[in-house]
Amino acid sequence: MADYRAPLEDMRFVRDEVFHAEQEWQAMPSTAELNAELADAILEEAGRLVEAELFPLNQRGDAEGCLFEGGKVRTPAGFREAFLELARGGWCGLGGNPDHGGQGLPKLLTQAFDEMLYASNASFALYLALNNGAGLLLDAYADEATKALYLPRLYAGEWLGTMCLTEPHCGTDLGLIKTRAVPDGSGGYAITGSKIWITGGEHDLTENIVHLVLAKLPDAPAGAKGISLFLVPKRRVHEDGSLGEPNGVVCGGLEHKMGIKGSATCVMHFDEARGILIGEPHQGLATMFTMMNYERLSIGLQGLGLGDVAYQGAMAFARERRQSRAPGGAAEPDQAADPILVHPDVRRMALDARAWNEGGRLFAAFVASELDRAKYHPDVEVRDASADLVALLTPVAKAFLTDRGFAATVEAQQLYGGNGYCVEWGAEQYVRDARIAMIYEGTNGIQAMDLVGRKLTRNRGAYVKRLVERVREDLGGGDDIEPALRPFQEAAMRELERLERVSATLIEAAGKEPAAAGAAAHDYLHLLGHALYAWMWFKAARAANRGLSGNGPAGKDFYQAKLVVGRHFLERQLPRSESLERQIAAGPEGLMALDRHLF
Amino acid sequence: MADYRAPLEDMRFVRDEVFHAEQEWQAMPSTAELNAELADAILEEAGRLVEAELFPLNQRGDAEGCLFEGGKVRTPAGFREAFLELARGGWCGLGGNPDHGGQGLPKLLTQAFDEMLYASNASFALYLALNNGAGLLLDAYADEATKALYLPRLYAGEWLGTMCLTEPHCGTDLGLIKTRAVPDGSGGYAITGSKIWITGGEHDLTENIVHLVLAKLPDAPAGAKGISLFLVPKRRVHEDGSLGEPNGVVCGGLEHKMGIKGSATCVMHFDEARGILIGEPHQGLATMFTMMNYERLSIGLQGLGLGDVAYQGAMAFARERRQSRAPGGAAEPDQAADPILVHPDVRRMALDARAWNEGGRLFAAFVASELDRAKYHPDVEVRDASADLVALLTPVAKAFLTDRGFAATVEAQQLYGGNGYCVEWGAEQYVRDARIAMIYEGTNGIQAMDLVGRKLTRNRGAYVKRLVERVREDLGGGDDIEPALRPFQEAAMRELERLERVSATLIEAAGKEPAAAGAAAHDYLHLLGHALYAWMWFKAARAANRGLSGNGPAGKDFYQAKLVVGRHFLERQLPRSESLERQIAAGPEGLMALDRHLF
Repeated sequence: MADYRAPLEDMRFVRDEVFHAEQEWQAMPSTAELNAELADAILEEAGRLVEAELFPLNQRGDAEGCLFEGGKVRTPAGFREAFLELARGGWCGLGGNPDHGGQGLPKLLTQAFDEMLYASNASFALYLALNNGAGLLLDAYADEATKALYLPRLYAGEWLGTMCLTEPHCGTDLGLIKTRAVPDGSGGYAITGSKIWITGGEHDLTENIVHLVLAKLPDAPAGAKGISLFLVPKRRVHEDGSLGEPNGVVCGGLEHKMGIKGSATCVMHFDEARGILIGEPHQGLATMFTMMNYERLSIGLQGLGLGDVAYQGAMAFARERRQSRAPGGAAEPDQAADPILVHPDVRRMALDARAWNEGGRLFAAFVASELDRAKYHPDVEVRDASADLVALLTPVAKAFLTDRGFAATVEAQQLYGGNGYCVEWGAEQYVRDARIAMIYEGTNGIQAMDLVGRKLTRNRGAYVKRLVERVREDLGGGDDIEPALRPFQEAAMRELERLERVSATLIEAAGKEPAAAGAAAHDYLHLLGHALYAWMWFKAARAANRGLSGNGPAGKDFYQAKLVVGRHFLERQLPRSESLERQIAAGPEGLMALDRHLF
Repeated sequence: MADYRAPLEDMRFVRDEVFHAEQEWQAMPSTAELNAELADAILEEAGRLVEAELFPLNQRGDAEGCLFEGGKVRTPAGFREAFLELARGGWCGLGGNPDHGGQGLPKLLTQAFDEMLYASNASFALYLALNNGAGLLLDAYADEATKALYLPRLYAGEWLGTMCLTEPHCGTDLGLIKTRAVPDGSGGYAITGSKIWITGGEHDLTENIVHLVLAKLPDAPAGAKGISLFLVPKRRVHEDGSLGEPNGVVCGGLEHKMGIKGSATCVMHFDEARGILIGEPHQGLATMFTMMNYERLSIGLQGLGLGDVAYQGAMAFARERRQSRAPGGAAEPDQAADPILVHPDVRRMALDARAWNEGGRLFAAFVASELDRAKYHPDVEVRDASADLVALLTPVAKAFLTDRGFAATVEAQQLYGGNGYCVEWGAEQYVRDARIAMIYEGTNGIQAMDLVGRKLTRNRGAYVKRLVERVREDLGGGDDIEPALRPFQEAAMRELERLERVSATLIEAAGKEPAAAGAAAHDYLHLLGHALYAWMWFKAARAANRGLSGNGPAGKDFYQAKLVVGRHFLERQLPRSESLERQIAAGPEGLMALDRHLF
């Protein structure tokens, strides 16, 4: 009953008309051969693939889940076949390094594919997401021999990568890990310990699995500064890439979860498994952050994709469902009742979900284009500036996209009435599948702490200052602007000033009172999110306005709808930032007042 | 791993120190024999029962669900035994009419029991909730013979009642129902049709089930004015109460749902089932509202109860879990890490859930005490005023308590990190079980429409005006108030003024523009909710302050915690009302601007 169509039209608008992808790409040698036409061809094919192959497996995969038996994991029916088809089509190496068989496509393009993957089948998407991050990490830190051996196989989807961080007693606080790595005298290490919540730790999609594992060397300093990173394959790998014996890595079981039931979330035991060190000893956490930051943006896209598929499903329902009459009298008097979209409150839910989704798609594209500049731009100053911006935006992309994505799935579910609670319509699965995105890859609270700590107060607002300059320049003066854009410009400017004001106060408070940053963190992240979306909606409105007056490619209906959805954001979502500012102003005292034993 | 303790201490505080229950009860002849001591004894026994009998069945019931086989429904293991014990203990007739074997206890007392039921086992609670509403309806509308036959058995839990409204093509818009009732020539009616989403439509808890069914008589006017209400037992009932043959009512299957899996949600087919008319012909919807309004407050308590058990579970987790260090340096340096409650953002989540819960408990008690006045007060003016107030508050109690309750379960789940997503900890079940409460018994959008339509604009704000007068009187002047109460008083006054301002504007706008009421509905309900909670927190702070200075029964720790939680509400929850006011001011134009085919 549910349905999903890859939102190619909006993706094109965002990419070409808002972010001018072709110009961006052609300014950078590594991506200069890419153009909008080729990007379209890739995304159209991707859309066909996810619509035809992955979406039909989504509900069944949820019902069936993964099965653990005799140490092996069986993914839901159809997952293996679909994966093999994707791998054959080269879809596991889209963003990979061309020197090792990757296709070197920029993030601004690949993130659109990621969104589709998550929308059509979030459980399935995770196997690829982890693999992409593992490839990125190895490309950045492994020696040439390791890269030559592993990367082509990861990019081809012959093997899949994982990320092994958490242990039963520690997730956020990785300094506490107990997994040990002992040199084995032949240049390798014997890894021993247990890891939990390992996505794709064991499965039947590929014949080998490449684990990236955090562990401590015998001489490791205490805490987070004593963590090293190791590559530990499920089966040992000969120098020619052929597979050897099993490597002392076993799956101890699967977690039973609220959702993403087609994703194998494994307990993994390492018993003197042979690993090789990746990066420098004791630098494992910093090294792993290459992968973690990748996954954080990826998980943001999970929020976005699920928000969109939830909206699409709700609209399919709304087109069929008739209840009661329009407020001003029957819209379709010859029918027993009007379609539910005549009701303002139904429209409110629909537009809420849609405005968060479309704002999120703009924001995700913005972060992606900055990632591309940071990686590919020929000018080192541009690269550095974009890298700083990405550092600032990563926690927002992870947390705000997933908080808003979850909210969108809940609004969409609400729109179905009772049907939304029944499994058959699929709406409730999106809510369950979206919920995890606020939790894993660093909870959204941890993202907020990262933002106010490392990204705001530690550099005394330097990143935010540069962001503000950038936005202010883009917004331009107020005088010569089209009347249709004025409310967008004014709102974005107002939020920018709010952001500056709140940032300055918070930096000062954090210097005086240790709990101030943590007390403000959640609300500050959301405030920054609102400010960024206000800017994004200004950009979208500007592009839509241009499209309207110049017969742009997307057509009049599209541009007019874009302006209406943007107006909804301004009128009914952005006002939240006022109350966030007030909440931040309350400071830490109230939060810290209650004795621990009184909770 | 999860745990639940009935919150008796807070219930006592709310009942005795905030709402002065004993004085209330003694002012009304029907409840004059009740005192705080007896109420305590009842609730302590209730607490023991739900903790020992119902809570242990909750997670198992979710895992097992209800089973449909050969037309019969088997509830999860242990449900039947627990139900029989409750029935034997007289717990199905707490609020029932004493003339027919009920115990006639006031709502202010019974709603505390209802909260415990939902908190300990929401699926189980529903069987009793429907039965209570059915009893209330029959007591109000059935003839004496029917009451004498049915009420004692419903109160004793020998039989259980249901509410049969929804059909596949209509839920909200009941005027469209197709179920027919044809006079059978012997004073009864033959009922034919299908109903869906019937909670407890079939089960193994009792030998008979008493369905209250909406159907249309042959001469019925079209639409909602042609609905009549019928009592249709599963098995026919002889005049002496003994059971006769099956009555043409069969269960066609169970819904597969996101949560409340231990609650049998049935498709019911009526095939010339014999029914008797309850109330007047064609007045069925008005008659049914006696039950529906009961269930709406009851479902509000589902939101509250689940919010509280979720909070309690999260605190049990937080007491054990250690990650990272307190912002100002180690709180427990001899341990590897500090308990997570040292972190301001963890406290934010905990206090968010707790402040919504405690505010909700105050509000639920307020509505209950007004219900009691409306029913039992000797002064007709008091009765009428309270009835009006209850009419105004019912949609808020249903929708705001469930929206905030769901939010509390989500915050509590977030506090566990990854464990919150794993089934074993129980946190995710509370989220799934709470989600339905925003949907059934009239979606929260329908509640909001009821509020701005029937309860606000139709009487041009008369109910709101009386509420405002009542609150203003209670808040008193600003001059002679204790300094600790001043922020509570000021906040409540500010929200009251906001409510007056927004109400007046909305009434005017609704007179001019048909979509204005619907466009504002959701945000107006939440704005009213915030204003009411602000008043509730003023009352609680006043009582806590009094308790602190006069050695009140709850003890110093309790009162101080209450003031801290109230401060959290003022500082970090109430600011939302500002943005709600701004959203309402946007009016309907933006919502209605998008053509239906562009959604």
